[in-house]
Amino acid sequence: MSERYDVIGIGNAIVDVLARAEDDFLVKHGMAKGGMALIDETRAEAIYAAMGPAIEISGGSAANTIVGVASFGGRAAFVGTVKDDTLGGVFMHDIRAANVSFSTPPFQNGPSTARSYILVTPDGERTMNTYLGAAQLLSATEVTEAEIAAAKVTYLEGYLWDPQNAKDAFVKAARIAHRAKRTVALTLSDAFCVDRYRDEFRALVENGTVDLLFANESELKSLYQTADFDSAVAALRKDARLAVVTRSEKGALVVTPEKIEAVDAFPVEEVVDTTGAGDLFAAGFLHGFARSLPHATSARLGALAAAEVISHLGARPERKLVELAREKKLLP
Amino acid sequence: MSERYDVIGIGNAIVDVLARAEDDFLVKHGMAKGGMALIDETRAEAIYAAMGPAIEISGGSAANTIVGVASFGGRAAFVGTVKDDTLGGVFMHDIRAANVSFSTPPFQNGPSTARSYILVTPDGERTMNTYLGAAQLLSATEVTEAEIAAAKVTYLEGYLWDPQNAKDAFVKAARIAHRAKRTVALTLSDAFCVDRYRDEFRALVENGTVDLLFANESELKSLYQTADFDSAVAALRKDARLAVVTRSEKGALVVTPEKIEAVDAFPVEEVVDTTGAGDLFAAGFLHGFARSLPHATSARLGALAAAEVISHLGARPERKLVELAREKKLLP
Repeated sequence: MSERYDVIGIGNAIVDVLARAEDDFLVKHGMAKGGMALIDETRAEAIYAAMGPAIEISGGSAANTIVGVASFGGRAAFVGTVKDDTLGGVFMHDIRAANVSFSTPPFQNGPSTARSYILVTPDGERTMNTYLGAAQLLSATEVTEAEIAAAKVTYLEGYLWDPQNAKDAFVKAARIAHRAKRTVALTLSDAFCVDRYRDEFRALVENGTVDLLFANESELKSLYQTADFDSAVAALRKDARLAVVTRSEKGALVVTPEKIEAVDAFPVEEVVDTTGAGDLFAAGFLHGFARSLPHATSARLGALAAAEVISHLGARPERKLVELAREKKLLP
Repeated sequence: MSERYDVIGIGNAIVDVLARAEDDFLVKHGMAKGGMALIDETRAEAIYAAMGPAIEISGGSAANTIVGVASFGGRAAFVGTVKDDTLGGVFMHDIRAANVSFSTPPFQNGPSTARSYILVTPDGERTMNTYLGAAQLLSATEVTEAEIAAAKVTYLEGYLWDPQNAKDAFVKAARIAHRAKRTVALTLSDAFCVDRYRDEFRALVENGTVDLLFANESELKSLYQTADFDSAVAALRKDARLAVVTRSEKGALVVTPEKIEAVDAFPVEEVVDTTGAGDLFAAGFLHGFARSLPHATSARLGALAAAEVISHLGARPERKLVELAREKKLLP
């Protein structure tokens, strides 16, 4: 199979509905700050009615990452499901306009396009409430050998583990990728998500279903059920072939059985909205990885993309990342 | 009639679809930079298909102004028409969440909620392409004596002059307001709009239908068909009881038959997107005017709100304007 993509992502196709909120609002509505909670349509309506003026902007964890790869100049594709409704049209327009190949047909019936109600507190932290809608209907049907085998890296989000049929899609994609001698990457997505599927995620890493793992500090601690970061990293090092641990302003670690490399974060003037920080870090690393750059350089690309995305509202880059990377002499 | 509102606005209820674009894009698609063009659904689809990743955010000139008044702590109401569709829901949510009283019922049938496709060039200038949809069905039916007579100021946008039935709504509102001894304010909206209705707008000012006029430099020059700013101001002074002329970074002039007061702009670190600059200037001035502040103070409130809104994407304030105004000692 000839190679057509650097990275293909599979994930929930979501439109973000972002509003600023005070910490009080989270408390009053029983939200775990910084987390992602799955909600039903009734709760979605209640949250929307209570929240302030919002902006709508395409999101979805893996989708954000893939848009980031394309912004670095990578050849990128995405698989995910929307309904043929207004927000589905918004999602499809935005991902294609970002130079991402996206050919999953929208559903004509069933639940509406997924939305995530994201509350951004004054410290820039985001708290997500996701109504999965049409995204949860993603199944193995949407995953094709023609696309997966044509990508150097298949990138999966842990959130896919929530609906059973999306999990099937995940497993099928990983199998196709490995048969084609490609790399399978996974992001753990969210500490609460890890908590729901800890044993399965650990098995995926240990048994080699996942070649490249992305996690932030709290996800990693949740994975190994420890409050001690160093022991979590030590455990990870035993299990994973290659892993990247992001640590917000403390930068990131690239972890292999051979060594641990620490990479600095890029300074940010003001953290406006952390939505997409992890997604965009993954974008930079994946782009560098697909282009066979040294891991430390790939991680710096990740840090650069994360710094860009937290400087403004929304989880997709506002600047061309390839240009930013050239300014910093990280890409030719 | 007891007074319930400081300002009520009547205008097109629009959701903005904002994307960054290069100047080339405007040329290629035959757009007049900095202007507002009315487009039909076919052209709307073509522009959307060609433009980059976008964000959706509630807009509409008078609606932005009214949201600004509410953000200053003013009692604000809005009249405008949407359809009962996804973007209509977005518009209604956002304006109510901004503490604006909005009770115009959405249409169940007919054209969809209005959208403005806004291209933001690297210099921060915005070029608007508006599909009026359900907004153009605004008619005298939506304008009620109960609401208009209860507001100190009725604020109208020049864009209403485009559809005949919206013009009827405008005329009815002005008549109710004056019968109730209230103030009628008008923004000229856009130089191209002035070009379409020059004689009528001049008549509105001369015959006292409009008590307070807002214009920017190019609208004022278009109104008096002169390239010379000073002669335009001199002509305005003869016609208008009270007018505010905004001049971007050069500040603004408050023009009355008695005198002309110049007010400075607030410095802005980076102009990100000029969408809403004039709308938010009007918000500050109207708020001060309704609270009987000196005109120069009201104009400074306008300049402050304009500076806030051009510092980020979108035409609605991201910060509470009343807090900004207190920091600058412009409001108690």
